Amino acid sequence: MSVLIVGSTALDSIKTPHAENPRLLGGSASHAAVAASFFAPVKMIGVVGEDFPKKYVALYKRHRIDLTGLQIEPGKTFHWSGEYEVNMNNRRTLLTELGVFEKFTPHLPETHKRSPFVLLANIAPALQHHVLDQMSRAKFVVADTMDLWLNIALPDLLRLLPRVHGFVLNDSEAHQLTKEDNVFAAMRKIHKLGPRYVIIKKGSHGSILSGPRGFFICPAYPLRKVVDPTGAGDSFVGGLMGYLSTARGGVDANIRRAMIYGAVAASFCCEGFGLKRTTRVKRADIDRRVKELEALTRF
Amino acid sequence: MSVLIVGSTALDSIKTPHAENPRLLGGSASHAAVAASFFAPVKMIGVVGEDFPKKYVALYKRHRIDLTGLQIEPGKTFHWSGEYEVNMNNRRTLLTELGVFEKFTPHLPETHKRSPFVLLANIAPALQHHVLDQMSRAKFVVADTMDLWLNIALPDLLRLLPRVHGFVLNDSEAHQLTKEDNVFAAMRKIHKLGPRYVIIKKGSHGSILSGPRGFFICPAYPLRKVVDPTGAGDSFVGGLMGYLSTARGGVDANIRRAMIYGAVAASFCCEGFGLKRTTRVKRADIDRRVKELEALTRF
Repeated sequence: MSVLIVGSTALDSIKTPHAENPRLLGGSASHAAVAASFFAPVKMIGVVGEDFPKKYVALYKRHRIDLTGLQIEPGKTFHWSGEYEVNMNNRRTLLTELGVFEKFTPHLPETHKRSPFVLLANIAPALQHHVLDQMSRAKFVVADTMDLWLNIALPDLLRLLPRVHGFVLNDSEAHQLTKEDNVFAAMRKIHKLGPRYVIIKKGSHGSILSGPRGFFICPAYPLRKVVDPTGAGDSFVGGLMGYLSTARGGVDANIRRAMIYGAVAASFCCEGFGLKRTTRVKRADIDRRVKELEALTRF
Repeated sequence: MSVLIVGSTALDSIKTPHAENPRLLGGSASHAAVAASFFAPVKMIGVVGEDFPKKYVALYKRHRIDLTGLQIEPGKTFHWSGEYEVNMNNRRTLLTELGVFEKFTPHLPETHKRSPFVLLANIAPALQHHVLDQMSRAKFVVADTMDLWLNIALPDLLRLLPRVHGFVLNDSEAHQLTKEDNVFAAMRKIHKLGPRYVIIKKGSHGSILSGPRGFFICPAYPLRKVVDPTGAGDSFVGGLMGYLSTARGGVDANIRRAMIYGAVAASFCCEGFGLKRTTRVKRADIDRRVKELEALTRF
């Protein structure tokens, strides 16, 4: 089955201690859609300006991403610029130009409204609601978020949580939302806000699922060098939803393995700037790392 | 086979936001020895003063720990006092009274010198050397350490590393030692300093082994509440060495499972002040959590 993905489509200018990379293809929807495309047909919902480079449209198309829902509006594409510190763990935003994103209202083509798998990638909760409002047969909906929305749109986010099956956030966001230091205690509180599946991302420490079958401790793929972690979380959730939408046997039976596929997608994302590494990956490369992770965790 | 364990034997006064616990049984050797005692006969090397409570001697004996190598000297037992912050991640030392520990020179009884498994728990590297100098048939030696020794006794520690088979340290210590932020890159550098097995502890994020068979990603047991993490790392390495010393088939074949047993020993340690929870544990409780960890990581 196909996955519908809504999120940001952006140009990212990324500075690290070693390099500067202007106007890379970025945004939560871009990363998630490319990661999901290795497993399933993807329908992407987003907005770009008239300045959006043709080569990035071509990139989406090479990944067979359905762009019927990609709006092209007069004005400039959302542009984010950030800088990473030496250890790649801390980043600061240098610049945010919303451009056409400021007035983005996602309109779903008729063909998109019945998608069974829906990923509400990181974007304002009001827009995540707006997409859900248009869906009629969503079978499994997962929402991602970021600290910004906890700060400026918490009521919208809290209204969203009972509407989704799965909720993904990182450990510091889970702490911010629940005031719990302990991730397992935090997940219990988040379940009470609505979602049946709660996934906490911990960067290089992996991720944890809390669901109907209990916890799952998902490792991160061991990388000796991280080039650019931007989009790793989006790739994780994109890979997860892509795998899940095509796996036989239901969510409960497949979500653990889906997280492993997500972790591998995230690992490739970290190995290059923007989507540079991910777009060179073949499905066989992904399967190889999944096998490796299997071997690295068996005892 | 038995495990020889040298380390500190102390009285710990531990303050948390919720409670004060004066003069608990503590020290790296105490925690490691009790954890190891669930799996193997333990010979402990340490020193206490004349004030050392008889109830703690009785506690060691209940765990069938061989105390032939426990020196009782005129003076006071090493006393450490520390305070944890709300989140249990940060602690500060309030007081350190070395007492008889200041002049501790470990003397090994003849019966101890041929122990095949040796755990040099956290203690000054010079003392770890001194113990190794007296051993004649050590088959597998593991050393633990702490940031203090990296700060004040680095040359001794660097001389120790080629003498041990395994080296255990936490992630911030690995960074301090190698200047590497990436744990996998750090482990590669530490191998070059001598040890064939390098284990990096990451607290609630689990631990990672780098050895002849590659990496192993070891989860932490999921705890919803941490009462007192003091001694968790010592319990981890104690459980690991205890299990390893009795497992059939050599180190390579068993070290992963040994780490899981260590992780479970550490989880019990965190659930009570000092050794209060650990000493109430039965082997069956440990085996149950090992099975749980197996289930929590399968996909």
